Amino acid sequence: MVPRVIFGKGSFSQLGEILLPQRRNSEAPFIFLVDDFFENRSLANEIPLLFNDELIFISADEEPKTAQVDALVARIQQNFDELPSGIVGIGGGTLLDLAKAVSILLNNDGLAQDYQGWDLVQRPAIYHVGIPTISGTGAEVSRTTVLLGPEKKLGINSDHTTFDQVILDPDLTQTVPTEQWFYTGMDCFIHCIESLEGTYLNAFSQSYGEKALDLCKEVFLEDHPEEASRDMLMMASWHGGMSIAYSQVGIAHAMSYGLSYLLGIKHGIGNCLVFQHLEEFYPEGVKLFNQMLSKHNIQMPKGICSNLSQSDFDTMVEVSLGMCALWENALGKDWKSIMTPQRLQELYSRI
Amino acid sequence: MVPRVIFGKGSFSQLGEILLPQRRNSEAPFIFLVDDFFENRSLANEIPLLFNDELIFISADEEPKTAQVDALVARIQQNFDELPSGIVGIGGGTLLDLAKAVSILLNNDGLAQDYQGWDLVQRPAIYHVGIPTISGTGAEVSRTTVLLGPEKKLGINSDHTTFDQVILDPDLTQTVPTEQWFYTGMDCFIHCIESLEGTYLNAFSQSYGEKALDLCKEVFLEDHPEEASRDMLMMASWHGGMSIAYSQVGIAHAMSYGLSYLLGIKHGIGNCLVFQHLEEFYPEGVKLFNQMLSKHNIQMPKGICSNLSQSDFDTMVEVSLGMCALWENALGKDWKSIMTPQRLQELYSRI
Repeated sequence: MVPRVIFGKGSFSQLGEILLPQRRNSEAPFIFLVDDFFENRSLANEIPLLFNDELIFISADEEPKTAQVDALVARIQQNFDELPSGIVGIGGGTLLDLAKAVSILLNNDGLAQDYQGWDLVQRPAIYHVGIPTISGTGAEVSRTTVLLGPEKKLGINSDHTTFDQVILDPDLTQTVPTEQWFYTGMDCFIHCIESLEGTYLNAFSQSYGEKALDLCKEVFLEDHPEEASRDMLMMASWHGGMSIAYSQVGIAHAMSYGLSYLLGIKHGIGNCLVFQHLEEFYPEGVKLFNQMLSKHNIQMPKGICSNLSQSDFDTMVEVSLGMCALWENALGKDWKSIMTPQRLQELYSRI
Repeated sequence: MVPRVIFGKGSFSQLGEILLPQRRNSEAPFIFLVDDFFENRSLANEIPLLFNDELIFISADEEPKTAQVDALVARIQQNFDELPSGIVGIGGGTLLDLAKAVSILLNNDGLAQDYQGWDLVQRPAIYHVGIPTISGTGAEVSRTTVLLGPEKKLGINSDHTTFDQVILDPDLTQTVPTEQWFYTGMDCFIHCIESLEGTYLNAFSQSYGEKALDLCKEVFLEDHPEEASRDMLMMASWHGGMSIAYSQVGIAHAMSYGLSYLLGIKHGIGNCLVFQHLEEFYPEGVKLFNQMLSKHNIQMPKGICSNLSQSDFDTMVEVSLGMCALWENALGKDWKSIMTPQRLQELYSRI
């Protein structure tokens, strides 16, 4: 779990004060990885740069990649004689996952792909701070950083992945475009459904998942003032992330990983594209999802898989079925006899 | 926040494995502070003692005291040449608070009373683990350790107070006697009401407080199997503790501190004795509380304050009104004009 967190409108302004005692010396910089959406926006000017700190803007148009992590680590190691005092990620799931992975790889030898899996990280990450600017992924609280590698899309899951400090400032999510707000919020909603309906569920995860789900319903099905709604979605993301940190996601995430690997479709919309077709597995969840879609007039793209070759389907099916824990959580120990490659291809073909 | 937590039936058996990497060397022991209720019970035999580890049984009949912390620290320093590898507290709020305070004082000079207040602890505590055997206080998750000092009952509130590791094993709460189960559970219920009705509330604390309150209602007003009920109350305590970690309690706690200081009344029952008379401040909460009392046939003692002298009342009123943050949270900035010493004495006299 994240040991330190502050919450509140305007809390971003405390970042400088929070980082100060973590600065080892003036030669050990803080590296800020920031979504390039904020280049030339006021947020960028409020970042408390000191000494030789570096600000790196990164596009979140594509899912984070292991090679991208390796390149960032190499760049930082080349530019500075000392190990940085810390890494600060500012943005959505992509930036937060990059910040987590870079902070691990700066203190562990080898390549990011070597650590994709469970508990492979030997040494602690360097100090790292997460500041979400969009709510839903749960990346701010989770013990994973999900990366597209040369062979798989898989998280670096470890106790060292979790941020040392998180700043939850709902004001930072004011600038999110509606569709992205919706798709990222649905990432939270969908992983709550998957966690709560899963066979791995325990009372710890359940209590977090139920609270996150309640908050998602309030945000996406009721009418609240925008400020209250931002607060609630930020907390939904937090609790939803806690819920899956101690349980597991399910079919939508397993299938979305395949879509993302083959077609580069981003995680939030990928989950939605899949989830709409999962009524046989998550009947109540899909019903609520359709109400949310309709309330917010979201038109999802169609025919995503209509022109794929058999080889493309084979790739997606293989990547997806490789996520054994997700399928077992969703369908139980006999999942392989329930979700055959043929059945999975048929599900993909509807998207 | 607690950086590491495990949850689940039987998870206590993982304690040895969890402590192993934290052992600095065979001369640096783990000190286990355990509620003496468990002396000669099976739990005591399952504690993974190694090398020169020490097991100290402590009575939880009285509230934890600063002098008791100082005596434990002196005893540990005298018995061992090295600083311990860590402190493990096993029990209810009293044992957990003692473990937190001892781990702080082993690494900070002076007396426990020197640190009662907010953020007075300069150096990190030594590694400390909390294992609750009763649910409700939230001591397992909070950043405070509430101690009776020579002059006041007040917490050592600091980021260093929080446990490094918590083990939530609902099986450990099987042995709690009914009345204690009820009064300690009500500690959680009451601090949820105080947090949710308080002026300090924000969306972070609210989401935790609401979930804890929902779980309390399930446990104390509905009929669930015992095992599920133990799970839920353990999570209620956890979320309730998180809620007040980022907001504040209110009138019942402020008054209960006075009762405890003067009469040594334990925190859980003290809160209940006060809360029953607070319907003008917490009407919905007191209504629910009365339903819970009646459902579980709890007979609270009466006439606690009927034979007190004016000087006794003065002492209680002074201790209670000293808890400014609690009163301000409950009644707003003008609390002093609302809760005069006369009015507070009148409230006490009903108990």
